[in-house]
Amino acid sequence: MLPSLVQKLIEHFAKLPGIGPKTAQRLVLYLVKSDPKILMDFGQSLINLKEKVITCQQCGQLSEKELCEICRSPRRDKNTICLVAEESDIISLEKSGIFNGLYHVLNGLLSPTEGMTPDKLNIKKLEERIKLGHIKEIIFALNPTIEGETTSLYLANYLKKYNVLLSKLARGLPQGANLEYADEVTLTNALKNRTKV
Amino acid sequence: MLPSLVQKLIEHFAKLPGIGPKTAQRLVLYLVKSDPKILMDFGQSLINLKEKVITCQQCGQLSEKELCEICRSPRRDKNTICLVAEESDIISLEKSGIFNGLYHVLNGLLSPTEGMTPDKLNIKKLEERIKLGHIKEIIFALNPTIEGETTSLYLANYLKKYNVLLSKLARGLPQGANLEYADEVTLTNALKNRTKV
Repeated sequence: MLPSLVQKLIEHFAKLPGIGPKTAQRLVLYLVKSDPKILMDFGQSLINLKEKVITCQQCGQLSEKELCEICRSPRRDKNTICLVAEESDIISLEKSGIFNGLYHVLNGLLSPTEGMTPDKLNIKKLEERIKLGHIKEIIFALNPTIEGETTSLYLANYLKKYNVLLSKLARGLPQGANLEYADEVTLTNALKNRTKV
Repeated sequence: MLPSLVQKLIEHFAKLPGIGPKTAQRLVLYLVKSDPKILMDFGQSLINLKEKVITCQQCGQLSEKELCEICRSPRRDKNTICLVAEESDIISLEKSGIFNGLYHVLNGLLSPTEGMTPDKLNIKKLEERIKLGHIKEIIFALNPTIEGETTSLYLANYLKKYNVLLSKLARGLPQGANLEYADEVTLTNALKNRTKV
């Protein structure tokens, strides 16, 4: 009933994560009424995405050049690497503004049941970076989930042959939490890792 | 920190209704990893949208030709018009499959506080259609809200000079409703418009 192009666009939107057919329809009916210049620019950006955006040769995050902005920056500490599962984790960490080292994107976490075995992760490049000799510390900034902990354990064991300090993000109460609603594991971690007042 | 093209695409997505910056970021990071062919087709569809999709000269709904599929169809009853506020309402009504007449899109509902005055609505074309003499009934399929009721009242008064039956969708309990939770207006309407068992 709808023009085939509108239908096709709805299908494209409906394939995106978290967007169902009803939402996709609403988005496209909104776009039909928007400025043609915006549509032109939106469409062109999608077409250029794969061509112009590559992954950084060093850390694996999205970049327009061979080395990403962070890896190129002379102001970043080249001795510390923060290991993350996905690019989006870098965005969250950069927003905090507290970390001044470099990153390394693993492209996932170990999960044998889902076919995520060590060879699927970006570990080889991490080893190459360690072998260059600059790296003093690798901070595992992985989700505190079974997959994250499994990956941390595997990598800690695999990388112990190198003379590099391996650390992981602290476990404890998140800011603004309510003790009453904190789960047991979080409370156990918070007690175990208690700090001086 | 993100490549500028990625950033631009996130901004495009974040401008869509109901999509915030975090969701936009997630969508773009998903798209970066998808098939270049899909991106090419998605982008091209957006670019072509304004060019290839117009509104039907007769009823005002989206169409690829001067007359939309429904207005062109020889199987539709040309004597009955279903008046809707938006194109999306046509999609919902067509899914029910119960209506076999033609449509007319008003492009909104009266709402003087939001600047929606009668001249902003697609009323002139509706009058032209009535004057051609085929139309026997106009069914007001407008939302049962203040704006919808106001628009119904205004149009009923405005169109009474023509010899056309004006009707509106029944008010009552929606299928699957729970009497306990039905609001007073719905219950009043359901009682008033009760039907024979």
